[in-house]
Amino acid sequence: MDKLGIEELIRDLSTLDYQNMCNNDFLLTWEKSADEISATFTVAEILRGMREQNISSRIFDSGLGVSLFRDNSTRTRFSFTSACNLLGLEVQDLDEGKSQIAHGETVRETANMISFMADVIGIRDDMYIGKGNTYMRNVAESVQAGHDEGVLEQRPTLVNLQCDIDHPTQSMADMLHIINHFGGIENLAGKKIAMSWAYSPSYGKPLSVPQGVIGLMTRFGMDVTLAHPEGYEVMSEVEDVAMRNAAESGGNFSKTNSMAEAFKDADIVYPKSWASYAAMEKRTDLYGNGDMDGIKALEQELLTQNKNHMDWTCTEELMATTHNGSALYMHCLPADISGVSCEHGEVEASVFERYRVEQYKEASYKPYIIAAMIFLAKKKNSADVLQRLLDRGTPRFF
Amino acid sequence: MDKLGIEELIRDLSTLDYQNMCNNDFLLTWEKSADEISATFTVAEILRGMREQNISSRIFDSGLGVSLFRDNSTRTRFSFTSACNLLGLEVQDLDEGKSQIAHGETVRETANMISFMADVIGIRDDMYIGKGNTYMRNVAESVQAGHDEGVLEQRPTLVNLQCDIDHPTQSMADMLHIINHFGGIENLAGKKIAMSWAYSPSYGKPLSVPQGVIGLMTRFGMDVTLAHPEGYEVMSEVEDVAMRNAAESGGNFSKTNSMAEAFKDADIVYPKSWASYAAMEKRTDLYGNGDMDGIKALEQELLTQNKNHMDWTCTEELMATTHNGSALYMHCLPADISGVSCEHGEVEASVFERYRVEQYKEASYKPYIIAAMIFLAKKKNSADVLQRLLDRGTPRFF
Amino acid sequence: MDKLGIEELIRDLSTLDYQNMCNNDFLLTWEKSADEISATFTVAEILRGMREQNISSRIFDSGLGVSLFRDNSTRTRFSFTSACNLLGLEVQDLDEGKSQIAHGETVRETANMISFMADVIGIRDDMYIGKGNTYMRNVAESVQAGHDEGVLEQRPTLVNLQCDIDHPTQSMADMLHIINHFGGIENLAGKKIAMSWAYSPSYGKPLSVPQGVIGLMTRFGMDVTLAHPEGYEVMSEVEDVAMRNAAESGGNFSKTNSMAEAFKDADIVYPKSWASYAAMEKRTDLYGNGDMDGIKALEQELLTQNKNHMDWTCTEELMATTHNGSALYMHCLPADISGVSCEHGEVEASVFERYRVEQYKEASYKPYIIAAMIFLAKKKNSADVLQRLLDRGTPRFF
Repeated sequence: MDKLGIEELIRDLSTLDYQNMCNNDFLLTWEKSADEISATFTVAEILRGMREQNISSRIFDSGLGVSLFRDNSTRTRFSFTSACNLLGLEVQDLDEGKSQIAHGETVRETANMISFMADVIGIRDDMYIGKGNTYMRNVAESVQAGHDEGVLEQRPTLVNLQCDIDHPTQSMADMLHIINHFGGIENLAGKKIAMSWAYSPSYGKPLSVPQGVIGLMTRFGMDVTLAHPEGYEVMSEVEDVAMRNAAESGGNFSKTNSMAEAFKDADIVYPKSWASYAAMEKRTDLYGNGDMDGIKALEQELLTQNKNHMDWTCTEELMATTHNGSALYMHCLPADISGVSCEHGEVEASVFERYRVEQYKEASYKPYIIAAMIFLAKKKNSADVLQRLLDRGTPRFF
Repeated sequence: MDKLGIEELIRDLSTLDYQNMCNNDFLLTWEKSADEISATFTVAEILRGMREQNISSRIFDSGLGVSLFRDNSTRTRFSFTSACNLLGLEVQDLDEGKSQIAHGETVRETANMISFMADVIGIRDDMYIGKGNTYMRNVAESVQAGHDEGVLEQRPTLVNLQCDIDHPTQSMADMLHIINHFGGIENLAGKKIAMSWAYSPSYGKPLSVPQGVIGLMTRFGMDVTLAHPEGYEVMSEVEDVAMRNAAESGGNFSKTNSMAEAFKDADIVYPKSWASYAAMEKRTDLYGNGDMDGIKALEQELLTQNKNHMDWTCTEELMATTHNGSALYMHCLPADISGVSCEHGEVEASVFERYRVEQYKEASYKPYIIAAMIFLAKKKNSADVLQRLLDRGTPRFF
Repeated sequence: MDKLGIEELIRDLSTLDYQNMCNNDFLLTWEKSADEISATFTVAEILRGMREQNISSRIFDSGLGVSLFRDNSTRTRFSFTSACNLLGLEVQDLDEGKSQIAHGETVRETANMISFMADVIGIRDDMYIGKGNTYMRNVAESVQAGHDEGVLEQRPTLVNLQCDIDHPTQSMADMLHIINHFGGIENLAGKKIAMSWAYSPSYGKPLSVPQGVIGLMTRFGMDVTLAHPEGYEVMSEVEDVAMRNAAESGGNFSKTNSMAEAFKDADIVYPKSWASYAAMEKRTDLYGNGDMDGIKALEQELLTQNKNHMDWTCTEELMATTHNGSALYMHCLPADISGVSCEHGEVEASVFERYRVEQYKEASYKPYIIAAMIFLAKKKNSADVLQRLLDRGTPRFF
């Protein structure tokens, strides 16, 4: 994208109503208006364009981006660091193992103590149903109160880097990939996307990816099908969101217990393993009670249950049934690839390999999506500021 | 604070004799002259004012701040990172677990090897009596020698982030909070501050906080009372410092074994748990001998000993006996709050909660205090440099 | 070095043919031409000179330097961070323990996922024979492919921070120390350097240091002698490289099983412990098979074998036999010093101490060598860019 293209996007941005995002958090995509979602995509594309044109988008001369990962992470960690760094923030990890948090202090206290110079806080907390998003809201309320009470000069912005309910940086990156793949939002009405469960030899994968996908992709007039074996239900609240979204956008949301039905004539397929909501709830309770034997037993039970559905795998045969036999295959990565990372997994190696580069590009949007979320939460007049950055023309790379 | 206020502080600073701080370390407050202590407060306020006015105080275009934490830490870690980041330094943690230090190399060698591009080294080493401060001095001597011998181009500055003797970044932040709370140093003469031991269900908390408080707060003409049960003595050398300070400043330093006596008519109370000097010495020896059974036995002994003093807790009843029943309650955080973080702790929940915001503000000074320590150790003509930064007017946030 | 000196070095640089280094990796010194090696030394000296003159060499306004340490490290970690920071890159560590890499994803995938905004990747992977350098090449190929396929906007550069074959950042820093010690490359022809095995009470030290030294130091017309007891052979491929280099440079490469013979009339001595190639190969196989008992047995065997050669130690007596009794003693640090870090080690304390400052200076080149490797891999017209940085004159320290 050249400078003219960037300026056109800035003009598009200036027609959108995104000002409410300022000093606000990004926790669930369905809390954001259509304009706000659009603004996030647009700013992401502008930031990407500016970087490609070697124009710095550094808006912070100093300031911290705090990261808190309550689950292992490579790509999200690097995406968050990349986004912060692009804007001029230094990442400081809150490593709960090295901290005094076990000492019994409250979320409110920790949130304030780490935020004296923090402009953004990114949290991944996806392991326990009913906990992660709630924790993020506690942190957000705490820093808001700290700001109101004069403790914090600036109000750090929360970015949900994956919780028990949604994975907005993932679904937004996925969606931006879809938009670019199909040449624009205007081409998406009526397109069929299959968000399908798939077999994996591991257990307990978060529900936030399928929930994030059905909660977001239903907003663009698409025909969204959620497929899974019985017993792998997602949160019914998110299904309600998807239903409402579909009605509003003129699209469709349906469910099926047949992978084949979901794939039939699909334009996009997203086969991926997850644990059922009920299982995640049980696990959360067992952890809460410290019942380690119970957890081991549950793990065995779930793995056995998974094995009943080893036929839920994305094969060439299934791909052939999609629209023109050439649906866009998507995954949040890393995938369980049959014969590569495991014996039997979510996808056949040849399917994965054919879409490998596409998936890497899908992932490449995430740093820009996160940077856009931060930017819009920090600058009420983002369009003006972006134009000024363009005019400033400081090179990223001298 | 507006720009005029900042300029006034810069003029105040220029009347002080702080030049000796340059290329020097900040290890114990009582090694610093009254002017140097004043300069540190003044620079901290200036840096805070500049940040509030969105003026960058970045003096480093590149350079490292090295952190070495030999004890868990959240707030001090974030304060140090915030301070370094504010001035333009990137923090690199020296994680002894991931290093080759166990390999048997000397302090002198490690200190030089990590310092080729280090402008500051912050160390927390508070666990073993007689060790922490000594280690810091070894590091300081090592990098001074390295600089003199032509190994290190610049001489990194040491900042004591808590040792066995003092906790200067804490006591200086505490003191700046007191100064602001009472409207200026000139209002402190004769004010009574009670630094009191308090019961906690944990054991082995460092002595550096009470020692830091009596070593610093006695310099301002205040009436400082140290209260603890028999057997919880602090280092006698620091008591001597407090005595000397009090005599010089026209204040008072006294000791008592009664919490009630200390609180009576106090303007400020600082109730906090610590281990006794004798116990810390014993523990240091046991660790030195690798006597893990001995350590476990000592821990039990100390916890039992603590339980004899569960009445040493900051209650509403006690608070009512302070000056006008409204002494300023202080704590370095995290506190052991009865009914919140433990069953019985250092303070009643209602007292803590009433002063919660005040305590968060108390903590908020720490990053600026650390930044001021670094600034003064780096810039002989700090007043001029700060004025030039103000004139430069680079925004922190574009 | 003053500004005129720096400009002279820039003119020297502009006569060299180094353009092929751009968008390329630094994996083995012997893959680089004589001009490229010279350019690396020259840029290192220029960057050092600029820092001494308080001139910023920051060429990145944003961007990540990714570090991956598969072995403990202090000095290399700090050197890499220092180098990245000097050029404006923020280091993000890829901690495989905290990542999802165990999840079974491929090197290709991880390499791309961490590189969306990475300008350089530094890897230390020196534990297993036949693995480390191969891994680095896999990463390099992966990011090259990612760049070619449009996944990565920029192509991150690989820097070998120590592998099973070579340790180029070490040997280049060592060599720059030699050049400066002897007053220029032109004075090195015919100088004798003894790279000698030495006894250490530890086991399994990498071969990359001696291999790096014989693979590089043979390129300057020096007389390079490799000495070790029978059974401590290095990789024969590297010996072949050394032989070829010596022939081309008009120098000499010879081997001996006598430390005394190597030291006789030497101008430089580099006594250092290493494990034999055969032992490292055996260990690699045992780890591959997860045979922990076998590893323990091997460790005992190797330590016993080492003990047969306790007389291989750098004594004052041996030093007296070197050229004028004053050979330059070198070590990559940390050294096993008899009576200091162990009972019997690689070197007598008095020898080590006499050359201590020299060794610290030797180590001080490493950050600049790494920065030079990155610079040349990023800027085809490095000479012009350095001149522009000099003209820009941004101070490193305001």
